[in-house]
Amino acid sequence: MKNSPASRKEELRALLRDLGKKVYTDLDQKKFPQVEFPSRSVRNIVYDKELKQYILGEGKVTRSAGNIKHIRPFTQLLWLAFFANQLTTQVKTSTLRDVFYSSQAFDIEFTDQSESDEIITDLEAVLTRPRENFNIYPEERSAIFGDLTIEYTVPGYEGRTLNLSSHPDGYLIGPSLSTAEFRDTSAEMIIAIEKGGLFTRFVEEKVHSRFKSIIIDTSGQAPRSTRYMLRRLSRELRLPVYILTDGDVYGEHIAMVIISGSVGAAHLRELTVPDAKWIGVWGSDIVKYKLPTIPMTEIDIKRIYELKKDPRYKGGIWQRELDVFLKLKRKSELEAFSKYGLTTITDKYLPEKLEEAKSL
Amino acid sequence: MKNSPASRKEELRALLRDLGKKVYTDLDQKKFPQVEFPSRSVRNIVYDKELKQYILGEGKVTRSAGNIKHIRPFTQLLWLAFFANQLTTQVKTSTLRDVFYSSQAFDIEFTDQSESDEIITDLEAVLTRPRENFNIYPEERSAIFGDLTIEYTVPGYEGRTLNLSSHPDGYLIGPSLSTAEFRDTSAEMIIAIEKGGLFTRFVEEKVHSRFKSIIIDTSGQAPRSTRYMLRRLSRELRLPVYILTDGDVYGEHIAMVIISGSVGAAHLRELTVPDAKWIGVWGSDIVKYKLPTIPMTEIDIKRIYELKKDPRYKGGIWQRELDVFLKLKRKSELEAFSKYGLTTITDKYLPEKLEEAKSL
Repeated sequence: MKNSPASRKEELRALLRDLGKKVYTDLDQKKFPQVEFPSRSVRNIVYDKELKQYILGEGKVTRSAGNIKHIRPFTQLLWLAFFANQLTTQVKTSTLRDVFYSSQAFDIEFTDQSESDEIITDLEAVLTRPRENFNIYPEERSAIFGDLTIEYTVPGYEGRTLNLSSHPDGYLIGPSLSTAEFRDTSAEMIIAIEKGGLFTRFVEEKVHSRFKSIIIDTSGQAPRSTRYMLRRLSRELRLPVYILTDGDVYGEHIAMVIISGSVGAAHLRELTVPDAKWIGVWGSDIVKYKLPTIPMTEIDIKRIYELKKDPRYKGGIWQRELDVFLKLKRKSELEAFSKYGLTTITDKYLPEKLEEAKSL
Repeated sequence: MKNSPASRKEELRALLRDLGKKVYTDLDQKKFPQVEFPSRSVRNIVYDKELKQYILGEGKVTRSAGNIKHIRPFTQLLWLAFFANQLTTQVKTSTLRDVFYSSQAFDIEFTDQSESDEIITDLEAVLTRPRENFNIYPEERSAIFGDLTIEYTVPGYEGRTLNLSSHPDGYLIGPSLSTAEFRDTSAEMIIAIEKGGLFTRFVEEKVHSRFKSIIIDTSGQAPRSTRYMLRRLSRELRLPVYILTDGDVYGEHIAMVIISGSVGAAHLRELTVPDAKWIGVWGSDIVKYKLPTIPMTEIDIKRIYELKKDPRYKGGIWQRELDVFLKLKRKSELEAFSKYGLTTITDKYLPEKLEEAKSL
């Protein structure tokens, strides 16, 4: 199956082999080994209207063993490729922090973690694959619940299946789930929600069966592995993704990052969900549903002006809702619906917004 | 079964009924209704050496409908008791934030969330039960993994069982797990660890089967529902609890709060695990295992001096390790063991510390 976790793993190891082969070929030809990859400098980051995300332009950087300034990052990069190969072969996972310390086991010098993080991002750019594909996962975990049967590929669990509706508090989205095959679902949509308390409410109010949905708790800004999971669910199950956040500029941006990715990940394509829809809480919902609000701070307002200039926010509901927030100068939260009863959000707001989403 | 989730629920509702009955009895006797409960003022918080936790002294506060200054908090308290009864009867859960907004559905006024949080803590003091018992849960969730079969008591899942080793990324500890009955386990100990990345490593390295353990990710400072779960596991399964944290003053305090609770929860007994043991990373481990370190900040050092005066830290490893940290003026992290290979922490450090813990 194309795009399956097994094929992704094979692909990744082929890319690592190619990188190694390139170095050996250069050496065989008595050339200084070198690697070329897209530049991640700000000048090389452009917005792609088609893809609705930032991408890298034509600029390239080279790391060559023949350049004394390059020897340090080039060695670090090759060590990391070796370490990534080790992780994927031994099926062990790591974190950014862990990689920093692991380098010391090999006498590879990184001044601090920011330097090793940078090289990890370089390797992503070289391989054009997110670091999760070479088993470096974020520390933060968010959760999933719903009728989805998965089949594990991790050692000790290969071939075992699990239905993600058997634990109502939710399942952590970690390495095992990220690499599992999706086998079966009755769900017709994915609903991502910003807060753990609301995630629990949604499960209690049976949003999964009433709206035939898989529910994801993003726990604030969605961790990368959660964005990756949302993309997989969207693509492999061909299901629409709806995002619910607090009614403020940060909530709007949580939705935007899920949909269009971040500037820092312009070298990647696997962390975006271009078809996902932000269905609320919009500024205009605050007015329409008479939600209790709190005043914005100066920082909130400054943030709105920043995003108004961001190309991802050009036009559509994005710009429109920024303007509404700016006009209101007040913000609201998902919990604010509780003013009208604990289940107003699931009984009234959610179905109305899902209906409205059809015309988005 | 005494102390079972079902009996706890019955007990809680009896306490709420008693509170209501008290008000009606006062009214029948033509008295202004009033409620008396232990004062949570700083002067009334004392350290109990036997219990190894802060408790409330003999001081009492009264809320009386006959005192004009009391009418506001007294009304708020009675509304909250009513709302808690609703939550537990309808088996719905809420969060602190959610309660603040829910009050507006009943025209109960709270100036802000800090006022409603305060009243929630008052109700805890009145009932001498943590708010999780009346279905107010924290927003934060941490995770659990291991051979433990639970039986749910929440609606829609009653009587269904689940073994907590079937999802290697871990299960969220939320309301369903907090109220589940523990049915069967082969585990001989509980290991709580501060970081998600290490939790995953422990699962990958099969710490659950090699050390016959249930593994808990506290995700930093353990959320209250996780401390509550640790207490239940310790008491109901009669298993020892071992805590692993980063090697710094904050790590030491994460362990302390699990063991002895916090000053703010002096009115409660159900959030401590007095027999749990902090097994590392100690300051002395940093030296013994030659761990990579980073320098402490001024704030770290100030925090050590604060805790040195805290009665919970009197004597034993607590005071000793604070002194070691102070002497080193450097700190280390769980990931630092990766300098000696990814599995050094599970292959060498953990078994050595578990052995050492026998004499703690």
